[in-house]
Amino acid sequence: MHFASDNTSPVPPQVLEALIEVNHGYAMPYGADPTMTDVRDAIRKAFEAPEAAVYLVATGTAANALALACLCPPWATVYCHPQAHIEEDECAAPEFYTGGAKLTLVGGDDARMDPAALERALAFTARAGVHNVQKGALSITNATEAGAVYAPADVAALAAIARAHGLPVHMDGARFANALVSAGCTPAEMTWKAGVDVLSFGGTKNGLMGVEAVVLFDPARAWEFELRRKRGGHLFSKHRYLSAQMAAYLRDDLWLKLAARANDAAARLSTGIAALEGARLLHPTQANAVFAAWPRAGHVRAQAAGAQYYFWPMDQSLEGPGDAALSARLVCSWCTTDDEIDYFLSLLAD
Amino acid sequence: MHFASDNTSPVPPQVLEALIEVNHGYAMPYGADPTMTDVRDAIRKAFEAPEAAVYLVATGTAANALALACLCPPWATVYCHPQAHIEEDECAAPEFYTGGAKLTLVGGDDARMDPAALERALAFTARAGVHNVQKGALSITNATEAGAVYAPADVAALAAIARAHGLPVHMDGARFANALVSAGCTPAEMTWKAGVDVLSFGGTKNGLMGVEAVVLFDPARAWEFELRRKRGGHLFSKHRYLSAQMAAYLRDDLWLKLAARANDAAARLSTGIAALEGARLLHPTQANAVFAAWPRAGHVRAQAAGAQYYFWPMDQSLEGPGDAALSARLVCSWCTTDDEIDYFLSLLAD
Amino acid sequence: MHFASDNTSPVPPQVLEALIEVNHGYAMPYGADPTMTDVRDAIRKAFEAPEAAVYLVATGTAANALALACLCPPWATVYCHPQAHIEEDECAAPEFYTGGAKLTLVGGDDARMDPAALERALAFTARAGVHNVQKGALSITNATEAGAVYAPADVAALAAIARAHGLPVHMDGARFANALVSAGCTPAEMTWKAGVDVLSFGGTKNGLMGVEAVVLFDPARAWEFELRRKRGGHLFSKHRYLSAQMAAYLRDDLWLKLAARANDAAARLSTGIAALEGARLLHPTQANAVFAAWPRAGHVRAQAAGAQYYFWPMDQSLEGPGDAALSARLVCSWCTTDDEIDYFLSLLAD
Amino acid sequence: MHFASDNTSPVPPQVLEALIEVNHGYAMPYGADPTMTDVRDAIRKAFEAPEAAVYLVATGTAANALALACLCPPWATVYCHPQAHIEEDECAAPEFYTGGAKLTLVGGDDARMDPAALERALAFTARAGVHNVQKGALSITNATEAGAVYAPADVAALAAIARAHGLPVHMDGARFANALVSAGCTPAEMTWKAGVDVLSFGGTKNGLMGVEAVVLFDPARAWEFELRRKRGGHLFSKHRYLSAQMAAYLRDDLWLKLAARANDAAARLSTGIAALEGARLLHPTQANAVFAAWPRAGHVRAQAAGAQYYFWPMDQSLEGPGDAALSARLVCSWCTTDDEIDYFLSLLAD
Repeated sequence: MHFASDNTSPVPPQVLEALIEVNHGYAMPYGADPTMTDVRDAIRKAFEAPEAAVYLVATGTAANALALACLCPPWATVYCHPQAHIEEDECAAPEFYTGGAKLTLVGGDDARMDPAALERALAFTARAGVHNVQKGALSITNATEAGAVYAPADVAALAAIARAHGLPVHMDGARFANALVSAGCTPAEMTWKAGVDVLSFGGTKNGLMGVEAVVLFDPARAWEFELRRKRGGHLFSKHRYLSAQMAAYLRDDLWLKLAARANDAAARLSTGIAALEGARLLHPTQANAVFAAWPRAGHVRAQAAGAQYYFWPMDQSLEGPGDAALSARLVCSWCTTDDEIDYFLSLLAD
Repeated sequence: MHFASDNTSPVPPQVLEALIEVNHGYAMPYGADPTMTDVRDAIRKAFEAPEAAVYLVATGTAANALALACLCPPWATVYCHPQAHIEEDECAAPEFYTGGAKLTLVGGDDARMDPAALERALAFTARAGVHNVQKGALSITNATEAGAVYAPADVAALAAIARAHGLPVHMDGARFANALVSAGCTPAEMTWKAGVDVLSFGGTKNGLMGVEAVVLFDPARAWEFELRRKRGGHLFSKHRYLSAQMAAYLRDDLWLKLAARANDAAARLSTGIAALEGARLLHPTQANAVFAAWPRAGHVRAQAAGAQYYFWPMDQSLEGPGDAALSARLVCSWCTTDDEIDYFLSLLAD
Repeated sequence: MHFASDNTSPVPPQVLEALIEVNHGYAMPYGADPTMTDVRDAIRKAFEAPEAAVYLVATGTAANALALACLCPPWATVYCHPQAHIEEDECAAPEFYTGGAKLTLVGGDDARMDPAALERALAFTARAGVHNVQKGALSITNATEAGAVYAPADVAALAAIARAHGLPVHMDGARFANALVSAGCTPAEMTWKAGVDVLSFGGTKNGLMGVEAVVLFDPARAWEFELRRKRGGHLFSKHRYLSAQMAAYLRDDLWLKLAARANDAAARLSTGIAALEGARLLHPTQANAVFAAWPRAGHVRAQAAGAQYYFWPMDQSLEGPGDAALSARLVCSWCTTDDEIDYFLSLLAD
Repeated sequence: MHFASDNTSPVPPQVLEALIEVNHGYAMPYGADPTMTDVRDAIRKAFEAPEAAVYLVATGTAANALALACLCPPWATVYCHPQAHIEEDECAAPEFYTGGAKLTLVGGDDARMDPAALERALAFTARAGVHNVQKGALSITNATEAGAVYAPADVAALAAIARAHGLPVHMDGARFANALVSAGCTPAEMTWKAGVDVLSFGGTKNGLMGVEAVVLFDPARAWEFELRRKRGGHLFSKHRYLSAQMAAYLRDDLWLKLAARANDAAARLSTGIAALEGARLLHPTQANAVFAAWPRAGHVRAQAAGAQYYFWPMDQSLEGPGDAALSARLVCSWCTTDDEIDYFLSLLAD
C-alpha cells in the first residue's frame, strides 16, 4: 500500500534486461552509442515527427529547465500553473537555467490552465515596455499535478493563444504516457499537432531508473540544447545506459502498457474511495493519481496498517478531535496491484 | 583494442547485480533510500571522515561544477591547470554554476600544477582590489589529464599555498581510484589530511554507469550543496539506482581492484611502447592513461586493424609523407585485457 | 501641469551649484573622493548609525537589485508586494542580480504588505524542503507605489515576522524622504530601529539627477556589496559628481524640504479632487502621489489644456460614451507649484 | 602633476553649461527626452551610420558588458588581450552579463592583439565540439591599455579573421577619441568600415562626468540591448542629464579637441622622458598615456614634489638600493597643462 509517489516504484524487468543486454564491449560515449540511434528513430516514429531532435537526460527537472532555457530569454516570463512542477518542485531550476527569467502563474481548476486566465495574464505582461519582463513561453503539464488530463483540444486552445502572442509552447510530460492513455489519442495529436514545440517526455515516473527524453519538434534549437545540456552537466559519457532504458520503454509499447496499468489502478482506487461514506474526490481521476478526502478514522486505520501517502495539503494531522475529512494524494504506478488497492479500500471502509 | 577513453567501457557484473538486487519493492526517493545510508557510511569509513557530507550525482561535470559553486563566489576565480577538465571539457559548466566566476590557468608539467606558478598567480590576483576578481578556490585533478599522479605530499604543498591565501581546495577525482592505487596511500592521506576540502569522487570512468560522489569533508556547506544539486536538476527521484551502484563499487574494495587492473594495463602498454624503436612517452604513465608518440607506420597498422584511440593533440593526421612520430592518448580501463595490449603492441612493432 | 512622474522634474539649483563647486582639480576616483567622506558621515549622522556602510549608485533599480543580491541567495525568494517596483518595473533585475532567485508576491491594501498575508506566505514556503525555493528576504517599499506610507510601527510589525523566520529586511526607499516627512519620525525610527537591514535611499525622484545611496546598517556585507556593485558596472570612476549631489541633498535638510514640498502639493491636489462631484480617491494620499477617479469630462478638459498624467491602470481611454469616472495617478514633485495644481483643479471642476 | 588616470580630471565648462541649460521644466524619462534625439542624430552623422542604434549608459564597464552580452552567448568565449579592461578591470562583469561566458586571452605587443595569435586561438577553440565553449565574439580596445593605437587597417585585419569564423566584433572605445585623433581617420573608418559591429564610445575619460554611448551599427539587437540595459539597472530615469553631456561632447567637435589636447600633452611628456639619461619608453606613445622607465632618483624627486602616477606594474617600490630604473604609467587628460609637464620633466632631469 505505497501511494506516496510513482517515483518510489521499482523498474519493470524489461528495463533491467535491456541494461544487461547493452553491457558488453565498448560503446562510443555522449550519445554516439548505436542504441541512441534506435531511440531517436523510435521516438520520431511514435510522434510522426521525422525531423524532431531527441535528447536524453536523467531527471525531469533537467528536462524542463533545459527546454525552457531554449525557449525563454532571461528577460521574459514563462506562463505556468501555480501548481506546476516548474514552479513548485524544482527549487527555481528554470530561473537558474534561463539566467533569471520569471514564472507568471496562471490558474485554473485541477491544475489545468484556464485559457481566459492566460489571455488576461498575457494582456497584462509588458504593458510598460522595457520596464517589464517580456512574454517568454507557455508551459503546461500533462497529466497535471492534480491528476487531470488536457485533451488535445485543450492543448490546442492554450497553444493557439500562445501562438497569437508569438510564444513557443512547452509541455512537461513527466506523466505524458498516463495522459496519452487517458486521452486515447496519438502522441502527435497531443503534441505538435496541437501546437507543442518542445516536450519533456517522461520515463522515470512510469518505470525507468532515471531517463527522460526532450523532444524538440522544430530542430532549429537542437545545437543550443546540446550546449546547454553539456554545460548543465547533463550529458552522460556512458550514454548507452540511458539509451537502453529508453529503447526498452518504447519497444512493444511498454510505456503505454505501464501507464495503462497505473491509470487502471488509480481508477479502481478512485471509484472505491468515492463510494465511501463521507468521502469525496477533490479532482477528477483522469491519470494515475487520486486526490480525495475521507473521514479521519479511515486514515487512522490505513496508516496503522502501513499505508503510505501524503496528506494534500501536507499540513494536516491525524491527531485532532472529531471525524472531519482529511484530504490526501494517492499515486499509483505500473506496479500497483489490485490486491493492494482492495486491501486499502477495505481499511478505509471498515 | 579500444583505448579511446575509459568512458567507453561497460560496467562489471557486480554493478548489474546490485541493480537487480535493489530493484524490488518501494523505496523512498531523493536520497532517502536505505542503500544511500550504506553508501554514506562506507565512504565515511573509507576516508576516515565520520562527519563528511556525501552526495551522489550522475556526471563528473555535475560533481565538479556543483562543488566549485559551493566554494567560489561569482566574483572570484578558480585556480586550475590549463588542461583541467573544468577548463577544457565542461563547456563552461563551472562558470554557469558559480554564476560567472573565472578560471585562472596555472601551468605545470604533466598537467600537474606547479606550486611556484600557483604562488605567482595568487600574488597577481586582486592586486587592484575591487576592480579585479578575487581569490576563490584551488582545483586540482588527480590523476591528472596527462596520466600523472599527485602524491599526498604534492597535494599538501599546493593546498598549503591555497590555505595561506584563505582558499578552499577542490580535487577533481574523476580518476581518484587510479591515483590512489598508483600512490599507494589511503584515501584520507590523499584528501583531507593533505588539505582537500571537497572531493569529486569518480565512479563512472572506473566502472559505473554514471555515478559520482561529492564528498564535503567539512559538512558546513552540505545544505547549500543539496540546494544547488536540486536546482541544477541533479537530484534523482529513483535514487536507489545510484546508491546501489556506488555501494557495489565500495564493497570488497571493488573500486580499487578495478583501478588496479586499469593501471596495470596502462603500465604494460606504456612499457611496451617505450621499448619500440622511434617511440617515446610524452608523460610518465602513473595511472591508466598512456601518452606516447611513435612512428606513423605503426599508427597506420594499428588503425587498419581496428585500434581506437585519439591523436593527442587531435589535429594530427595519418596522411602525410615520411615516418614522423605521431602522438596519441591511450586510455585503459578495468576491462582492458593483456591480449588486447599485446596484440596492439605487436601491430606497432611489426 | 505635469503629473506624469516625479522623475520628469528638473533638479533644484543647489544640486547644480554643488556640481560646479566640486568641478575643480583632480579627485581620486571610485569613491575615494573627499566629498564621499562627507556623504558617508552625513548619512551615518542622519540615521544615527555610525557603523553603517554607505554606497552610491545612479539608479533605483541598481540600488534595489544589488541590495537584494546581498541578502537573498539564488535558491531563495524575496517577499514583496505585487505592485512593488522590484516586481513590476525592473525587468527582472532582482532575478538577474541574485542569480535567479524568485519573488513571492504578498498582497495588501494601498500597496502595503499585509502582515497576516506575509505569515501565510512564509508558512507555505519551503514546506517540501530542498524541492522548494527557500525563505530569502523581505522587501517593502516606503512610500508605497500607491502613495501610502508605512509608519515605523508598520515596518516593525513586518520586520518582526521576517526576523522570526530568519530573514533580513530591505526597504526600497525610492521615495523614502516623502515617507519620512509624512510619518513625522526620524530616519533611524523608520529603518534600523524598526528592523530594516538595508535601505535603498532614494535621491533621484526627490531632486537629484540620478543618485541613490545604499545604506547597510550592518556593515558585514559591505565588501560583498562593493564587489557586486563593481561587477554590475555601477561603480563610478568620476565618483565626485555623485558625491557632490548627495552631499548637497543632505545639507541643511534639503532632502526633507524637497519632499515636504512634494507632499504638500499632493495633499492640496488630493483635497481638491476629493471635493469634486463624482470624484473619489483610490488610495489615501500620504506621500507625493494621488490616485483618484473623476468623471471623464474632467479628464477631457484637463488633457486638452495640456495636463500630463497616466491613467491607472493604463488601459483606459478618453474615448467612450457616458461620463463614467476614469482613474489616474498624479505625482507631484519638489517643483510642483500651487498655481499648477489650482489651474488643474479648475479644469476638472469646470 | 596628476598623471594617475584620466578619470581623476574634472569636466570642461561646456559640460556644466549643458547641464544648466537642460535643467528647466519637465522632460520625459528613460531616453525619451528631446536631447537624446539630438545625441542620436549627432552620433549617426559623425559615424556616417544613419541606421545605428545609440544608447547611453554611465560607466565603461556597463557599456562593455552589455555590448558583449548581446554578442556572445553563455556557452561561448570572447577573444581579448590579456591586458584588456574587460579581463583585468571589470571584476568579471562580462562573465556576469553574458551569463557565464569565458574570455580567451590573445596576446600581442603594446596590448594590441596579434592577428596570428588570434588565428591560433580560434583554431584551438571548440575542437571537441559540445564539450568546449564555442567561438563567441572578438573584443579589441582602441586606444589600448598600453597607450597604443590600432589603425583602421589593424582593426580590419583582426575583424576579417573574426568574420571568417562567424564572430561579431566589439570595440572598447573608452579612449576612442584619443585613438581617432591619433590615427587621423574618420569614425566610420575606425569602426564599421573596418568591421566593428558594436562600439563602446567613451565619454567619461575624455571629459564627461560619467557618460558612455553604445553604438550598434546593426540595429538588429537594439531591443535586446534595451532590455539588458534596463535589467542591469543602467537605464536612467532623468536621462536628460546624460543626453545633455553627450550632446555637448559632440557639439563643435569638443570630443576631438579634448582628446587632441590630451594626446599632445602625452606626446610632450613622452618626448621629454625619452630624452632623459637612463630613461626609455615601454610602449610607443600614440594616445594619451605614457609608459616609461627612468632612474629611481627621478621618481624620488617627482613624488617628493607631489607628482601622482602609478608604478606599472604596481608592485615596485621607491625604496631600495642603487638607481635601477622603475617603470610607470602616466596618463594625460584634456586638462593637463604644458606647465605641469615641464615642471615634472624638470624634476626628473634634475
